[in-house]
Amino acid sequence: MRENVSAYADSKRIESTKILVTLKIPIACFLAVYVLSATAGVAPGEQQKNAGAITQIRSVLRAQQEAWNRGDIDGFMNGYARSPSTIFISEDTVRRGWETVRDRYHQKYSSREEMGTLTFSEIEITPLSPDSAVVVGRWSLERAKDRPHGRFTLIFKRLPEGWRIVHDHTSAAK
Amino acid sequence: MRENVSAYADSKRIESTKILVTLKIPIACFLAVYVLSATAGVAPGEQQKNAGAITQIRSVLRAQQEAWNRGDIDGFMNGYARSPSTIFISEDTVRRGWETVRDRYHQKYSSREEMGTLTFSEIEITPLSPDSAVVVGRWSLERAKDRPHGRFTLIFKRLPEGWRIVHDHTSAAK
Repeated sequence: MRENVSAYADSKRIESTKILVTLKIPIACFLAVYVLSATAGVAPGEQQKNAGAITQIRSVLRAQQEAWNRGDIDGFMNGYARSPSTIFISEDTVRRGWETVRDRYHQKYSSREEMGTLTFSEIEITPLSPDSAVVVGRWSLERAKDRPHGRFTLIFKRLPEGWRIVHDHTSAAK
Repeated sequence: MRENVSAYADSKRIESTKILVTLKIPIACFLAVYVLSATAGVAPGEQQKNAGAITQIRSVLRAQQEAWNRGDIDGFMNGYARSPSTIFISEDTVRRGWETVRDRYHQKYSSREEMGTLTFSEIEITPLSPDSAVVVGRWSLERAKDRPHGRFTLIFKRLPEGWRIVHDHTSAAK
């Protein structure tokens, strides 16, 4: 079993450039992506593609956070694929379709006070293929009345319009 | 925007064979996979690979459910990649490493009564690449004292030992 673990860890290191990034220090992140890619044994072309994907995905998440914090839910929704198959999962509920997901955000966060200030942190972006990546991160809202927080798993796909979220599974601390 | 939605829906239909499967009627499922693949415009070789992946992933999930329902958490854990990077997310907590995930299951479900009877349902398997797939599904436990239920998002990877879960995000109804 130890051998399996080690062989799998090695293959992971080679095949997927898993990078811990934060939205706070983009230049350091870019360097980290570059250095980690260079040491990961990934082919140079693949490195560049992964670094490009990671940069673009990070930029989508940053734009989402900024849109949220100016009270712009529709701007926030630009991060999601405008598709009927876009999926949002929380608790025991699956919502399907970009418009359904947008409606949920509008209903759940119906005022600026409800929206509060959003922070994404502990973002990890792992490419799964040239056109897909999984992203793990932490979300927290700072509001006058409370401070809800939790985690999300996102599947991003590379679409003609750019990298977009096609799948969001979000959970909250009890 | 409508055009984008439609173009994206078309590309999704062609590129990813998204199949609704249940663990209850494997023969019907196999036929459904075959028929849907055949009508999805996927190249024949790709269809076969996707159908193979879907069959194997479904079999891993069935084995997990069966192991759980005979009280065998270690058997259930065979569905996860034995890797330090295997990740399990719930509420606001991220657990890393196959052993950490196993320990959580042993602690949270420390007796046969706590384990109850597990049912997976509404399983959807979407290939992301020849070596990765995302799975959405519903879980429920039938126990003497309660009936907890929720949803999961799993990332499966094709490893030398077979398809295994490398990422699990699970949420529960409040």
